[in-house]
Amino acid sequence: MRPNDPSKLALSPLSNEVNQMLSNSQGNQAPRNTEDGNEKLNKQRSFEVVRESMHSAISMNKTEVLDAVLNDFSEGYFSLSFENRRKLLLTLAKEYDLNRTQVRELIKQYLGLQLPGGNEAQSGGVEDEGFLSTFYRIERNLRHSLKPVYEVLFERLNTHPGGLKVLTILRADILSILAAENISSLRALDSYLKEKLSTWLSPAALELHQITWDDPASLLEKIVAYEAVHPISNLIDLKRRLGVGRRCFGYFHSAIPGEPLIFIEVALLKAVAQTIQEVLWDHPPILESEATCALFYSISSTQPGLAGINLGKFLIKRVITLVRRDMPHISVFATLSPIPGFMQWLLSKLASQSKLAEAEDISCSSADRSGLTFYENVLEPEEERRLIESSGDFAAGKNGMEIMLNLLTPTSHDWTNSSKLLSALKPALMRLCARYLLQEKKRGKALDSVANFHLQNGAMVQRINWMADRSEKGLRQSAGIMVNYVYRPETIEEYAHSYFSLGHIHSSSDVRRYVQPLTENESSTN
Amino acid sequence: MRPNDPSKLALSPLSNEVNQMLSNSQGNQAPRNTEDGNEKLNKQRSFEVVRESMHSAISMNKTEVLDAVLNDFSEGYFSLSFENRRKLLLTLAKEYDLNRTQVRELIKQYLGLQLPGGNEAQSGGVEDEGFLSTFYRIERNLRHSLKPVYEVLFERLNTHPGGLKVLTILRADILSILAAENISSLRALDSYLKEKLSTWLSPAALELHQITWDDPASLLEKIVAYEAVHPISNLIDLKRRLGVGRRCFGYFHSAIPGEPLIFIEVALLKAVAQTIQEVLWDHPPILESEATCALFYSISSTQPGLAGINLGKFLIKRVITLVRRDMPHISVFATLSPIPGFMQWLLSKLASQSKLAEAEDISCSSADRSGLTFYENVLEPEEERRLIESSGDFAAGKNGMEIMLNLLTPTSHDWTNSSKLLSALKPALMRLCARYLLQEKKRGKALDSVANFHLQNGAMVQRINWMADRSEKGLRQSAGIMVNYVYRPETIEEYAHSYFSLGHIHSSSDVRRYVQPLTENESSTN
Repeated sequence: MRPNDPSKLALSPLSNEVNQMLSNSQGNQAPRNTEDGNEKLNKQRSFEVVRESMHSAISMNKTEVLDAVLNDFSEGYFSLSFENRRKLLLTLAKEYDLNRTQVRELIKQYLGLQLPGGNEAQSGGVEDEGFLSTFYRIERNLRHSLKPVYEVLFERLNTHPGGLKVLTILRADILSILAAENISSLRALDSYLKEKLSTWLSPAALELHQITWDDPASLLEKIVAYEAVHPISNLIDLKRRLGVGRRCFGYFHSAIPGEPLIFIEVALLKAVAQTIQEVLWDHPPILESEATCALFYSISSTQPGLAGINLGKFLIKRVITLVRRDMPHISVFATLSPIPGFMQWLLSKLASQSKLAEAEDISCSSADRSGLTFYENVLEPEEERRLIESSGDFAAGKNGMEIMLNLLTPTSHDWTNSSKLLSALKPALMRLCARYLLQEKKRGKALDSVANFHLQNGAMVQRINWMADRSEKGLRQSAGIMVNYVYRPETIEEYAHSYFSLGHIHSSSDVRRYVQPLTENESSTN
Repeated sequence: MRPNDPSKLALSPLSNEVNQMLSNSQGNQAPRNTEDGNEKLNKQRSFEVVRESMHSAISMNKTEVLDAVLNDFSEGYFSLSFENRRKLLLTLAKEYDLNRTQVRELIKQYLGLQLPGGNEAQSGGVEDEGFLSTFYRIERNLRHSLKPVYEVLFERLNTHPGGLKVLTILRADILSILAAENISSLRALDSYLKEKLSTWLSPAALELHQITWDDPASLLEKIVAYEAVHPISNLIDLKRRLGVGRRCFGYFHSAIPGEPLIFIEVALLKAVAQTIQEVLWDHPPILESEATCALFYSISSTQPGLAGINLGKFLIKRVITLVRRDMPHISVFATLSPIPGFMQWLLSKLASQSKLAEAEDISCSSADRSGLTFYENVLEPEEERRLIESSGDFAAGKNGMEIMLNLLTPTSHDWTNSSKLLSALKPALMRLCARYLLQEKKRGKALDSVANFHLQNGAMVQRINWMADRSEKGLRQSAGIMVNYVYRPETIEEYAHSYFSLGHIHSSSDVRRYVQPLTENESSTN
């Protein structure tokens, strides 16, 4: 430590400082390198100070004045530029991992000992307890030696007021860095931190709390800020989402007070809604006693640093249990969900396939089609015919797919204003959307992130809805289509399991109907 | 699983069943072997069923119907006799530890790879990321392979409603078994479970709650049941401990609702109390605004299965912070504590030394004193003289120590009814008590468990008080002497550290005065 260093931050309680930092670094980007040379020097010095406080936080004896050092480190970290945060995290990943000399020494000792009683340990109870005790001790030491030194920092921050929040921000920064460059040591640190966070954020440590209009404004403000699916436009909108016929539940952790880690918005309805408009705006709420359906229409995580830790699964299960207990007349649990990856997948498919189609036109009469095995007409003949017929005034193209691509690409979404185009596009878009949801996979899991989320939680694909979200975001992401996933309490575990182990996507016959004819046509048209 | 096994327990929500079991197994002893042959057969069958549900709970895929299996296991476990619990825990420790064949295989792979960039990893950033990524992967696999399989059961129970409580009971049983027999594998399991519990019960996961007369009777009942230091005699006593001039704070974990893991009772006073009578009974409470001292007069852990996990340290620190914030006129934080090990130490010292004294009498004139190097007259000459003078009617003995031993041993504590004996014993007992607290150690730590607890938390020994606890327990444990430890917020961390690393026991000059003359006399009398 440098006691007289003028750039050294004063010791002070974490909470206020950190909260300020947090609101500045929302979206976890510290300002990137906009300072002049002088400020750069200050930043650089400050980097060394933060590095030292990190070192102290890790190497101090556990009974020492940890709180001050941890505050010091946290505040220092937040004051760093993104570039310096990156440097610090790399230092942590590389210089505070393992003492590998010690690991090898313990491995040598370990290998020098005989296994106790074989794997099944069918001992007659007359083993030498002294020897066994040595064996277990060395095994434990080896286990401990394989723990990276940075675990100490994680553990200490976790038990420090405000520290869990600091850890989620560290991890958000790590994920930003890893998205830009692949650094093995940092990836190893990230996977370690993620494991730790998963443990600490076990459902046992989380509290379910219904968020109402009576909650503090500081909490409601967070709901408005974090709502990721359907932005909350004003106070009336917020009040409605917390009022009659609506519920909002959050998962809270005692170490991150005043904001949920994840929250879900629920509408109590007579039937599963087909459009988001009717949920958010159109319909006045019904009598709650007449509701038969709880519709989950929005679920938002608030901490980017908790990416990959599935808190939603337990939240949904607990909310279902709670609603069933309090309102036994509600028997249907469904979502009205976006399909965030549909258009991206479709447009890239249309672009690549219409290029291949062009190539096919050229080599059409040639006998050599081996270069074209990836070619597939995404459209059915009838769909292509209607598109070509109705697109005249709007878009050109050498084939149906190119026309569709040119219709759907502009961000003005002009196609939605023409009833002719709407009815020409609808059959193709609905069929392709069903195909996207049920058949397009990556490593055996649904390609769409929201689909993957609900399917791994044990839901099934129930229905897809045309023009269900006419917002700019809805049109851009999924041509306005939304999907209802349904959770049946009695099949949640079974579906989750068969999806997890076999990649099986459960769906209603209504949705399957869209894709079954395709399979037949495919074989007849190719 | 044996679906048709008639002894199979029905699946049902855990909470009620477990709560019943809990109140039956308070003190964590299941009935030991009192059943007849027939019942034994049932128990035995039930053991196999519980063993199978334990196996399922560990080996199931994580998306399967875990909740039912974990309930099944927990209920099954509670239904077992202590003997069968022991058998099951040994099975868990021996057959669900490590796959050591896999460990050795991974060690082989690991040793086949070069260390990345040495220990200091001063790499120029041009390392082969592909190789490093393989290295970190194998290291992680090795780390994971060294985790015992039973960790899965612990982790799953921890995230299961009611499961943390089940784990504390498992551990209480394990500690009972280990107290009777030393089984290395079970000791290894215990140390692993203890590490896990420490992590899960980090202060970040605990909530401080002030317990008041407005709390549910079911919670207050637990306070009465668990109060370990000064038993609560009736409702009026309880109400007084929660009323004006008193505070009671508990540490709660969300997974163990309705009962604190540890709680502390505080009296707001004008001065540090010298006797427990004035705290519990004699004095009417003062105006809280006139208080200058917060006296911690009782601290009780409620879970035997959390032995060795220091929750008290954080509780005390948080309570001090809270009281300082709410009542800035309170500046003294002290305890009035029992000295549970004093009499046991003193009586055994008196017994052994008076025997050695006898031996010395015999070999008194002999030149060979080498066999007597451990001999020490525990009493000072003046103390011995007064004891011999005043003990005539009460006890005999060949020397002062034997007389003292004979006076103090009877459980009737007759010596407390004679003012002559009281004044003869007081100087010796007070001096020896100060010596016991300040100088008697085991592995560098205070021999007395309560002293060790407060010293490791950063307190100092402030004052010892004559006839401070005249209850049977107080007389038996410490001849009625109690001690005030003082916590000075500004020195807590420093004292905790010097005690931890150097075994330094901080004390006031008042207490040191008792032992300093002894050191001078010792050199002059020997």
